[in-house]
Amino acid sequence: MVMEPRTAFQSKTVMTDLVLPSETNPINNLFGGELLARMDRAASIAARRHSRRIVVTASVNHVAFNRSIPLGSVVTVEAKVSRAFKSSMEVYLDVWIEDRESGESIKANEAIYTFVAVNETGHPVKVPELVPETALEKERFDGALRRKQLSLVLAGKMKPADAKELKAIFE
Amino acid sequence: MVMEPRTAFQSKTVMTDLVLPSETNPINNLFGGELLARMDRAASIAARRHSRRIVVTASVNHVAFNRSIPLGSVVTVEAKVSRAFKSSMEVYLDVWIEDRESGESIKANEAIYTFVAVNETGHPVKVPELVPETALEKERFDGALRRKQLSLVLAGKMKPADAKELKAIFE
Amino acid sequence: MVMEPRTAFQSKTVMTDLVLPSETNPINNLFGGELLARMDRAASIAARRHSRRIVVTASVNHVAFNRSIPLGSVVTVEAKVSRAFKSSMEVYLDVWIEDRESGESIKANEAIYTFVAVNETGHPVKVPELVPETALEKERFDGALRRKQLSLVLAGKMKPADAKELKAIFE
Amino acid sequence: MVMEPRTAFQSKTVMTDLVLPSETNPINNLFGGELLARMDRAASIAARRHSRRIVVTASVNHVAFNRSIPLGSVVTVEAKVSRAFKSSMEVYLDVWIEDRESGESIKANEAIYTFVAVNETGHPVKVPELVPETALEKERFDGALRRKQLSLVLAGKMKPADAKELKAIFE
Amino acid sequence: MVMEPRTAFQSKTVMTDLVLPSETNPINNLFGGELLARMDRAASIAARRHSRRIVVTASVNHVAFNRSIPLGSVVTVEAKVSRAFKSSMEVYLDVWIEDRESGESIKANEAIYTFVAVNETGHPVKVPELVPETALEKERFDGALRRKQLSLVLAGKMKPADAKELKAIFE
Amino acid sequence: MVMEPRTAFQSKTVMTDLVLPSETNPINNLFGGELLARMDRAASIAARRHSRRIVVTASVNHVAFNRSIPLGSVVTVEAKVSRAFKSSMEVYLDVWIEDRESGESIKANEAIYTFVAVNETGHPVKVPELVPETALEKERFDGALRRKQLSLVLAGKMKPADAKELKAIFE
Repeated sequence: MVMEPRTAFQSKTVMTDLVLPSETNPINNLFGGELLARMDRAASIAARRHSRRIVVTASVNHVAFNRSIPLGSVVTVEAKVSRAFKSSMEVYLDVWIEDRESGESIKANEAIYTFVAVNETGHPVKVPELVPETALEKERFDGALRRKQLSLVLAGKMKPADAKELKAIFE
Repeated sequence: MVMEPRTAFQSKTVMTDLVLPSETNPINNLFGGELLARMDRAASIAARRHSRRIVVTASVNHVAFNRSIPLGSVVTVEAKVSRAFKSSMEVYLDVWIEDRESGESIKANEAIYTFVAVNETGHPVKVPELVPETALEKERFDGALRRKQLSLVLAGKMKPADAKELKAIFE
Repeated sequence: MVMEPRTAFQSKTVMTDLVLPSETNPINNLFGGELLARMDRAASIAARRHSRRIVVTASVNHVAFNRSIPLGSVVTVEAKVSRAFKSSMEVYLDVWIEDRESGESIKANEAIYTFVAVNETGHPVKVPELVPETALEKERFDGALRRKQLSLVLAGKMKPADAKELKAIFE
Repeated sequence: MVMEPRTAFQSKTVMTDLVLPSETNPINNLFGGELLARMDRAASIAARRHSRRIVVTASVNHVAFNRSIPLGSVVTVEAKVSRAFKSSMEVYLDVWIEDRESGESIKANEAIYTFVAVNETGHPVKVPELVPETALEKERFDGALRRKQLSLVLAGKMKPADAKELKAIFE
Repeated sequence: MVMEPRTAFQSKTVMTDLVLPSETNPINNLFGGELLARMDRAASIAARRHSRRIVVTASVNHVAFNRSIPLGSVVTVEAKVSRAFKSSMEVYLDVWIEDRESGESIKANEAIYTFVAVNETGHPVKVPELVPETALEKERFDGALRRKQLSLVLAGKMKPADAKELKAIFE
Repeated sequence: MVMEPRTAFQSKTVMTDLVLPSETNPINNLFGGELLARMDRAASIAARRHSRRIVVTASVNHVAFNRSIPLGSVVTVEAKVSRAFKSSMEVYLDVWIEDRESGESIKANEAIYTFVAVNETGHPVKVPELVPETALEKERFDGALRRKQLSLVLAGKMKPADAKELKAIFE
């Protein structure tokens, strides 16, 4: 199993697809649940590309649906691993929709998922380090640690007082 | 439109269903994305029952997938509104799977979604207050305020220093 | 395998879900076939909860679609075992739709399915007795015997003259 | 609207398709619910061909699942209108599976659905008479009257004593 | 394995089904991709009926979508093997839609798929010869050879100069 | 409506997704029909990006399925407009699968679809010219004319003798 550090770019996954009639809510916008499912598949591919392992969803971070996505839209989900821990990987997703007539792309959503790499029997295995390159990748890499602490605090697995990087933002 | 306060129990929504072969990942467990989609539908029904309005997903709070859900499982998603704000509602979900032979139910997941009530043109409308009754409902009602602050902080719409209830847990 | 008698309530299964655009016919109501499929899944879970075995659909009794179910409806399918025979179980289903604005629930359908409990190789196995508790459960328990006779008569496996309970209703 | 009597053959509808992995139960056979849905679509086409109207499912008669249908099977659903009443039509379905290696076809199921012809606003409209031609079509045509009486009796809309043709089989 | 020559009629496969809302594009016609998928399933059944083997899609010949197929249409896909080669079979498909009110059938498409018969490990196996009977079957049988040459030429596996039957049509 | 010439790159569409269990044939490879449907969606997005119009599938050119795509694969469909005619666009697709462990990408398929740009009532409208840039884009641009002639010849809309560019390859 290859374990040299890998860049965020190497895990980049692009999933462009239509919003079909079967995926819309009563006011003809993409169901939140369908977008969550697409993001889960794209993020799992990014995590698999980073780890070259079977990966399973461990958690979904806070996801805000700021902008509704109407029927017939072209939606692009872009996923990149933002940080790797021992056997888990945080994946950052950006969702874009584009206007057919102007051709312009608009940011519709961001989301953060966490995946764990496992072997054939479902046990966690080690993953390579993630090396951020761009300014945005570095910012997300740094934020990932605070988010991991927040997860542990919310799950009662870490005392708030021990979450130094997280605590710092409230001071 | 009825606007008297309503209890959490009045919005309770139960969605029991099977895990079908088309919904599983390579190690034969329910896809995270499919569970997210089911929870979105169940939560939207709870929010609709509370508000009697069209509702759209506003955000998904942190969701941890602690326990894998194998093919053929019977999965029960239970959703109740945990707190209502002006036009938004926090919905708390509990996910259970049951063992076929013992008949025992095991908690598989918790999740928190937020919905906004809208009119036919998609504009936010007011919703009734939520009245918690049981101890658990009250605990979730209180936590909802901290979670709302956390959302606003993470979205850059509130300064961490102003999020009093949230800040308190780090002191 | 546990074989003590079990109550109808212990098998009660609730499946609340939306009517999605992909499930409607040309006049925008839920397809009969889609409702039949949902009822089959809910009934199979009730039968499985009663028997704690793998169960397969044996028959569908007469189902009347009295009321159309429009796109966007919230539909609740409620299934309970109504009587257990040697290895088969009759499951009674009630289907409700609710009005979003009034919050009122209306009965849309009733249906009766029969399931057989089988082992891993598909052979029938014994199931526990069903103990009806409420007046309605008792009425359905009694009717189940007549319906079983009707099935056997229609399948040519019982002479009409031998179907005493069934025959009685025509006298 | 054409209203001359029409033969059963003129409504004959053949739907041959595969059993896909997403349509099977835990012992790898076609879900009862999925077969019910396919039969509903095939029967609705037969009723539409007879009436040349929009049709909606009114009821499903007793359906027995005598033979399991394994994953990968080729399934043929054949539907023909068996009798027309004022605005309703009984449709008789025969389901066949074929063995890949021998090429032989085996009868897997029979089912009977009833459809009502409606106009664009959902109100019942008259349908042409059905003229049976073969011996089997005539037998099913005759049986349709008894089945209609049975439906009415079970629905409490006809007194058992008035259902002459039905009552006769118990004498 | 039976290897006597078989007629085109013996492989005839009819798949009649509705166009459902989930299968339509923004102007409410059946998606090209969905029709391609239905034709693939129907053609695979015809090839399986001819060969009595597992079959896999080898290629899709030129398919023209001359006529749009609106939501709610009844679509009939009819597939017959047009010629068998060593282990491959060309399947010719005719697609019809029918007008609900007039009952008239209109040709909507033609398509040609090629399948290969394989054993359980995916290796090609021999298939029986195809014997055309009608004038149309004979015409398609003859055309199949030119189409096979065209495939080989386009794939760079045959020199255009060696494709005698194909070349002839340009002289 | 913008009508300046556009490059192939500007229409480039990438759709990366998993092969799910519901999309596989009896030997656990992606169904040909499902791949055809994915390619249709990706190609329609590329044609829409080029034309900024509603687009409908006009034809599918010869598609060879050279390599089977197993369950669980990560499949990337990449679509670019290869040439624009008056209101039609040829779209060239490349399909890649990647090995999870080595991370290597392998070419699985090529395909060519043609789309027509239409207005809201379904009538063809003009599209911008396509400007090829790379050597491969130029080669495909040139081939597109021969393929268009071949389509017209096969449809009986052009005499083989008039298809000069096509005819040349047989001399």
